Amino acid sequence: MIAEPRQRRSVAWQGAPLSSEPPGVRYLDQRALPHEVRYESATDVDALIEAIRCLAIRGAPAIGIAGAYGVVLARRTIADATLCQAALARLREARPTAINLAWAVDRVAAAVDPFAEAEALHREQIRVDAAIADVALPLFRPEMRLLTHCHTGGVATAGSGTALGAFIAAHRAGRLAHVWVDETRPLLQGARLTLWELQAEGVPATLIVDAAAAALMAQGRVDAVMVGADRIARNGDTANKIGTYALAIAARYHGIPFYVAAPKMTIDERIADGAAMHIEQRSADEVRCIAGYEVAAVGAVENPAFDITPHTLITAIVTEDGLWRL
Amino acid sequence: MIAEPRQRRSVAWQGAPLSSEPPGVRYLDQRALPHEVRYESATDVDALIEAIRCLAIRGAPAIGIAGAYGVVLARRTIADATLCQAALARLREARPTAINLAWAVDRVAAAVDPFAEAEALHREQIRVDAAIADVALPLFRPEMRLLTHCHTGGVATAGSGTALGAFIAAHRAGRLAHVWVDETRPLLQGARLTLWELQAEGVPATLIVDAAAAALMAQGRVDAVMVGADRIARNGDTANKIGTYALAIAARYHGIPFYVAAPKMTIDERIADGAAMHIEQRSADEVRCIAGYEVAAVGAVENPAFDITPHTLITAIVTEDGLWRL
Repeated sequence: MIAEPRQRRSVAWQGAPLSSEPPGVRYLDQRALPHEVRYESATDVDALIEAIRCLAIRGAPAIGIAGAYGVVLARRTIADATLCQAALARLREARPTAINLAWAVDRVAAAVDPFAEAEALHREQIRVDAAIADVALPLFRPEMRLLTHCHTGGVATAGSGTALGAFIAAHRAGRLAHVWVDETRPLLQGARLTLWELQAEGVPATLIVDAAAAALMAQGRVDAVMVGADRIARNGDTANKIGTYALAIAARYHGIPFYVAAPKMTIDERIADGAAMHIEQRSADEVRCIAGYEVAAVGAVENPAFDITPHTLITAIVTEDGLWRL
Repeated sequence: MIAEPRQRRSVAWQGAPLSSEPPGVRYLDQRALPHEVRYESATDVDALIEAIRCLAIRGAPAIGIAGAYGVVLARRTIADATLCQAALARLREARPTAINLAWAVDRVAAAVDPFAEAEALHREQIRVDAAIADVALPLFRPEMRLLTHCHTGGVATAGSGTALGAFIAAHRAGRLAHVWVDETRPLLQGARLTLWELQAEGVPATLIVDAAAAALMAQGRVDAVMVGADRIARNGDTANKIGTYALAIAARYHGIPFYVAAPKMTIDERIADGAAMHIEQRSADEVRCIAGYEVAAVGAVENPAFDITPHTLITAIVTEDGLWRL
């Protein structure tokens, strides 16, 4: 069993061989952060699918780990092979944009020992996150002020995080001074998760509204931007949280490096470029309501979850195997 | 008395010569919109200052009209000349960025008949708004999809609005198809006010998060951007709601025209360029809390109210006297 505390915060298998717990996937409900550190258990595949859909489990790598353990859960709770296959098909489609989910489900489903495979995949994730931080380190300098969008920390990866893991490692190594954190509307992952995780790790961080990033760049207060990725095309075009593209344009306008930190598996070799990427549209209520409060009473809403940043605006993609300069 | 319904919605003098009402400034509390159309009355200058500071009265022109009537209120409620002068000094500093406030206070204070002057100023505002809409009209085409930020409608100007007034007039003339409305964090003026006013005027509009604007531009779904201005320097550099600058950069990147609609008086001839403009920093709680709900529990917040868009990114400024091409 993988029991290192950091990993247990996000997604883990529940039910040791000799325990009385029912088999299941234990996860940190990220929607309750930063106010409450609340764990839930999905003891059937459809509960896990719902947890992924409603963003209780979020972050492409964490969704992948959840999918991996989800296969184990399906095999242990659904006796009928056809029904089990149907459940796996639903699981791999729970979120359309993240490549990790379908990939992890397929890999674990094809393994002779699904549980061993899911654990191997989880261990790999932890190794990959650490390697990304190592590769990113030479990009940082002691006085550097980074800017980031959305959330790429440990709770999103079930490891130590991608961009956020790199910030934390760099700060520990004395090579990063400060992080500007975009709040990241509509779901405020920056305000709720990134700020919370950086604070917990002792990294100086300041929250801003998404629309303030360009003004900070104009004032010379941002030295580089680093974000995560949900999916990367063969040419380097990157799908990431809505707002990433606007940041990349602003960074280019100000001559500021723009980095993407992501595991190599985020690169989908089957997709030639960003034009072929599917963009998930999410519910109008995510924009219209904040914590149950209705901010807009009337009118239509468009709520794309992601945007595509063309590779021409990306300085380099940081992967566990090295820098991919674009 | 100026009694046209649209104007009465925002800021008006209260207390007709023969009425029993105490003299005061009646205003629409814009913070309660769109859920409640709530009017309040400030019957002393400090109540009016507070209404301006807390954004119950907002929008540079509406603040100017409030300041104009505020001078009348001071003269009628404060007998001591020194105290009255001190109250006017506080009034003209209630919001530091909008030029209209100090200008209107000074103009009305210098008049022989302050009440007649305040009403004249209000009438001018109504005429200016209508003229801006006329000047803007040739910029629009029937199929056009505009994008705007913050709120520039009638409740912000005490007239018919600047950019929003132009949209409404263009739509009535069959020369505008649709408006994308940035929600405009932190105070959500787009979601709360712009969407509400466009809906009320029958203009098709769709709400988006601020960070989604650039992605819509990339998809070819935005034909032009038009925003208001809080202050314009002699060279055309424009201070407007935080996020305006990022939009202007994105519009330039996509080859989309970027217009500013503002009364000529927004142009401050004493200021050479944007570098000399003071940027108001507002409370961290505006970012940290939404309708009382705390979205970020910990950490520092930076909350600039405005940013500066350099004239090089502005296609033209629409004033009541014509287009100023930059």
